[in-house]
Amino acid sequence: MPVLEFYRNRGIQLDLAVEAHALLRGDAQQEIPGVSESKEDFENSKVTTVVIQDPAAAQMMGKAPGTYITIDAQGLRESDPLIHDSIAEVLAQKLAELLEIQNIPQNAHIMLVGLGNWAATPDALGPKVISRVFVTRHLHKYIPEQMGPGTRPVSALSPGVMGITGIETAEIIRGAVEKVTPACVIAIDALAASNVERICSTIQIADSGINPGSGVGNTRSALDRNSLGIPVIAIGIPTVVHAEIIMYEAFNNLRKAVPGMSRQINDATLQQTVNNMLMPFGGHLTVTPKEIDSLINNAARCVATALNQSLHPDITSENANLFLQ
Amino acid sequence: MPVLEFYRNRGIQLDLAVEAHALLRGDAQQEIPGVSESKEDFENSKVTTVVIQDPAAAQMMGKAPGTYITIDAQGLRESDPLIHDSIAEVLAQKLAELLEIQNIPQNAHIMLVGLGNWAATPDALGPKVISRVFVTRHLHKYIPEQMGPGTRPVSALSPGVMGITGIETAEIIRGAVEKVTPACVIAIDALAASNVERICSTIQIADSGINPGSGVGNTRSALDRNSLGIPVIAIGIPTVVHAEIIMYEAFNNLRKAVPGMSRQINDATLQQTVNNMLMPFGGHLTVTPKEIDSLINNAARCVATALNQSLHPDITSENANLFLQ
Amino acid sequence: MPVLEFYRNRGIQLDLAVEAHALLRGDAQQEIPGVSESKEDFENSKVTTVVIQDPAAAQMMGKAPGTYITIDAQGLRESDPLIHDSIAEVLAQKLAELLEIQNIPQNAHIMLVGLGNWAATPDALGPKVISRVFVTRHLHKYIPEQMGPGTRPVSALSPGVMGITGIETAEIIRGAVEKVTPACVIAIDALAASNVERICSTIQIADSGINPGSGVGNTRSALDRNSLGIPVIAIGIPTVVHAEIIMYEAFNNLRKAVPGMSRQINDATLQQTVNNMLMPFGGHLTVTPKEIDSLINNAARCVATALNQSLHPDITSENANLFLQ
Amino acid sequence: MPVLEFYRNRGIQLDLAVEAHALLRGDAQQEIPGVSESKEDFENSKVTTVVIQDPAAAQMMGKAPGTYITIDAQGLRESDPLIHDSIAEVLAQKLAELLEIQNIPQNAHIMLVGLGNWAATPDALGPKVISRVFVTRHLHKYIPEQMGPGTRPVSALSPGVMGITGIETAEIIRGAVEKVTPACVIAIDALAASNVERICSTIQIADSGINPGSGVGNTRSALDRNSLGIPVIAIGIPTVVHAEIIMYEAFNNLRKAVPGMSRQINDATLQQTVNNMLMPFGGHLTVTPKEIDSLINNAARCVATALNQSLHPDITSENANLFLQ
Repeated sequence: MPVLEFYRNRGIQLDLAVEAHALLRGDAQQEIPGVSESKEDFENSKVTTVVIQDPAAAQMMGKAPGTYITIDAQGLRESDPLIHDSIAEVLAQKLAELLEIQNIPQNAHIMLVGLGNWAATPDALGPKVISRVFVTRHLHKYIPEQMGPGTRPVSALSPGVMGITGIETAEIIRGAVEKVTPACVIAIDALAASNVERICSTIQIADSGINPGSGVGNTRSALDRNSLGIPVIAIGIPTVVHAEIIMYEAFNNLRKAVPGMSRQINDATLQQTVNNMLMPFGGHLTVTPKEIDSLINNAARCVATALNQSLHPDITSENANLFLQ
Repeated sequence: MPVLEFYRNRGIQLDLAVEAHALLRGDAQQEIPGVSESKEDFENSKVTTVVIQDPAAAQMMGKAPGTYITIDAQGLRESDPLIHDSIAEVLAQKLAELLEIQNIPQNAHIMLVGLGNWAATPDALGPKVISRVFVTRHLHKYIPEQMGPGTRPVSALSPGVMGITGIETAEIIRGAVEKVTPACVIAIDALAASNVERICSTIQIADSGINPGSGVGNTRSALDRNSLGIPVIAIGIPTVVHAEIIMYEAFNNLRKAVPGMSRQINDATLQQTVNNMLMPFGGHLTVTPKEIDSLINNAARCVATALNQSLHPDITSENANLFLQ
Repeated sequence: MPVLEFYRNRGIQLDLAVEAHALLRGDAQQEIPGVSESKEDFENSKVTTVVIQDPAAAQMMGKAPGTYITIDAQGLRESDPLIHDSIAEVLAQKLAELLEIQNIPQNAHIMLVGLGNWAATPDALGPKVISRVFVTRHLHKYIPEQMGPGTRPVSALSPGVMGITGIETAEIIRGAVEKVTPACVIAIDALAASNVERICSTIQIADSGINPGSGVGNTRSALDRNSLGIPVIAIGIPTVVHAEIIMYEAFNNLRKAVPGMSRQINDATLQQTVNNMLMPFGGHLTVTPKEIDSLINNAARCVATALNQSLHPDITSENANLFLQ
Repeated sequence: MPVLEFYRNRGIQLDLAVEAHALLRGDAQQEIPGVSESKEDFENSKVTTVVIQDPAAAQMMGKAPGTYITIDAQGLRESDPLIHDSIAEVLAQKLAELLEIQNIPQNAHIMLVGLGNWAATPDALGPKVISRVFVTRHLHKYIPEQMGPGTRPVSALSPGVMGITGIETAEIIRGAVEKVTPACVIAIDALAASNVERICSTIQIADSGINPGSGVGNTRSALDRNSLGIPVIAIGIPTVVHAEIIMYEAFNNLRKAVPGMSRQINDATLQQTVNNMLMPFGGHLTVTPKEIDSLINNAARCVATALNQSLHPDITSENANLFLQ
């Protein structure tokens, strides 16, 4: 299982459960005990649900136990707003399902958290989503009589990253959660994929929270039920692929195409070649499509639309702007 | 004392202690018991220190007891960076004095808080300062051996306003303060003045914290020693004048220029005239110079320079960028 | 006619033809020879069309001959997107009428020009509109077979202001017009009104182009049929009121409310009072509502929607994003 | 010479003359007729000057005849402002040399042009430089008596890209040049390198202008003495590496490390492997360091500093802000 080894040797964590599962299963598609996977088809997207059922499976997968729902929607990279809307609808429905699994009541206060650095393009997804969601907690608190039954209290934070604040992001969120006691946190973050086709076309939602090392390279401590005392749903979209993965994949494709080659190139040689290329940037080179700025804007708009629909089913286009800043 | 009455009738709070003091003293310059005022001259600025000594004086002034230092520096509106630097030096020195009055040790952790709405030009001063300060708490925590003696742990937050987050700003800050336990908070905020000459040319620093209703019209609850348990130093710069004050001042000037006029125009007529003008905007019209965007950028740069100098005396231009994001 | 005199003495130009006409007609509503005015009512807006028919009338009005259509729509300041859409529809229809008056063929190339300074909030309307319009000239030129009959070639420029480029804005536009020879220019600009209620709630479109001194205080040379050789349609929205007008209006209201006062206050006294207030800012103080940033964003979105509808009747929400950057 | 062939087969143009020269010379370092190269060492940078002397050499190099000066300065990626200043000084000196080679008089009007898309991070270098340069043409024209002898008329444009304006960028610039007749254009653009170490650490200046296909993938027509009638100096900094080059280089390193491998992998296999990886993004994947936003800000600041020093030798920090917007 050389790919997994390559990743582990280099300390690369797979943010997407579907990718981790596929790698573990290998070409032979063997079953992984304690991990189930199911698929659904929608008009403009395919949904794969991976459930990691126990600690042993979590250990193998390198991911916490929980339900990981992956929406694959190449249409998110095209320019058709109707397709984007139909993807947002699937996301809204899956979010509602996860909230129900977690027993979050319809009118409970939910805190949205946009993780990442608003000043670094591929890391700005979370803050961009936050700037587009309906924020209503203060309205429900101060003018409850004006709030219809189909909206709920929603608060929203973009806490920044440690390099900007000097504070561990999890600490800022923990502080805010203790003060305003939401029933659930939904955290939005940029991810890294191992396949360039997934950039800004895959959405993962999971009820296992956010765990150290996820995201585009920033070490953050965990945001999950353990650390916050409430359910944490994570929404992530890959915005980059690590350059070393691209190189590794290229080598792998080459190995398959050239007979006998895999015996010739030992793992040490391959690691060394990758290292030599990445040395000047400390392994932090990332691969993005040229149009990453606009792809991220599209993705942020889609996630915000889904959050708004899912959390406030009765806010329609007629009254939407009341809740936008 | 008709001006003060006009303000009180309209619920206008004077953000600047020097303005409140001048109004209270009136043309006759009477002494206000429990309030002292002293002046110093610097090359490019004048400093006025107003001390509100007891609750009775605080009640009269409409401001909490404490030391209010006002730096008047018209040069902040000109384009000479050398003049800006000399103003920043005075601000740095006065900040150091307030920190000493509050017994904050040289190496204690200080949390900087940029109040206000980054998406509303005249309210964005605080977040703009935060984006320019040296943030070091994480470096002192994780690589203390690399931090020289002339720097200290500094953290920095721009929590946004309630319309953006759905959460009372004071609650977010309280949460963060409890988690990372700084020795002192320094909060930066945009103010309203009653004189257009003060816009982006006056800097007020005070050790009394931030109190409800300060800032450009956003109701916030108090940020002070009472609410946070640690000293709170406030740095404020006026970025607007309420339009009603401009109108009132114009009437006042006219009254003085036309003999007998003040008897003719009673207060009710004047209030009504002002109301009629402001009605369509609910009293929220503000007066700003056309070049407000660039004036605020200059002011933010000056405050950030002063904070950096004052908090980290040994960070020089050679090593500064290590601490900037 | 003291108001008009006050304006002329101070060199204030009235950007809105309806305001100039109302002032000229005075309380007695006298007819102005060579100027006609008509009104229409729509669901969320009122439309007033002022036609300045000859040079003599132009001289009196202080505005070039032409058709000036004013859409008054307080709903532009509210948060209901459906109302915004209905206002955009009226604007689109009026634009289409002006294009027809000017004999611009349905498929002719139109150049959109966003005047103003993108770095100064109240002056940024034009560039903000430009960032939201469908740009299609290059598509019609390089992939004409993919462009349906209901779209036309549209190009778009935000040339900046002279302080940013060092070049007279009209020169940059003249240069571009000569190179790509559009059939018509539509220029979008921020205006000054004399009434705060008009800020971001009034839209003026005119077929007389843009003339020196219009806009928020920047001297620009003319953009009109004379200077460019093609029709120039101007779309303007007031984003500020000059502070001196606010003061003057306040005095005027007071004069009306206090019997006998107008005899007492002579014009020199009044001018002097206004001057004293404005001196430190050279007369450049402007009055804006606090929420000006979001009001301008709404206005820009409405104008862009109307331009897109009017210029490309067959671009619908399904294919819109193809033409947006 | 397989690398060159790989590039040509894939239509990759080498933006940097030093890279094209090195590839042509190959491992054997053979001389290329009509191309000279010389080197200088400075404290924080190395300068390589490549002169392409005749059309035959230009044909081989795939670049127009002219002088190409490359400044290699890894310090541009570090955080020391003193090092940045020393790099800017070298750039200012080399710019002055090129202006002299082109016989541009000391007081002649120079137009700066920031190429690229301000809304796409890796393509925004040019507009970012333009926002930081001293613009003085209007001051020299309207208040010449206030302009000292050590400044000159400078104008500045960021014309945008064709996707934003619908107009070929060269047409906009040609139009402006005809109207205001500068003596020389200096164009700033983001480049692509073939080595990740060069990203934001290499600066190329050339007196041959900008030629089709340069920049990050946007086809633009030429900006050179032929098309504009005046000398065009180009300043470029690589901000990306095409992903296919990274892959190719990785293969190459591997070929060298594994004995006998180069015979096994034929060019078709290699091309196919690269194609398979890039297909979903049409070959437009780029590799950037994670911190690209801040690297570009540093690079833009350095280029602007050098332009200001070089074009206005007598503008010092004391009077600099007079000329900044």
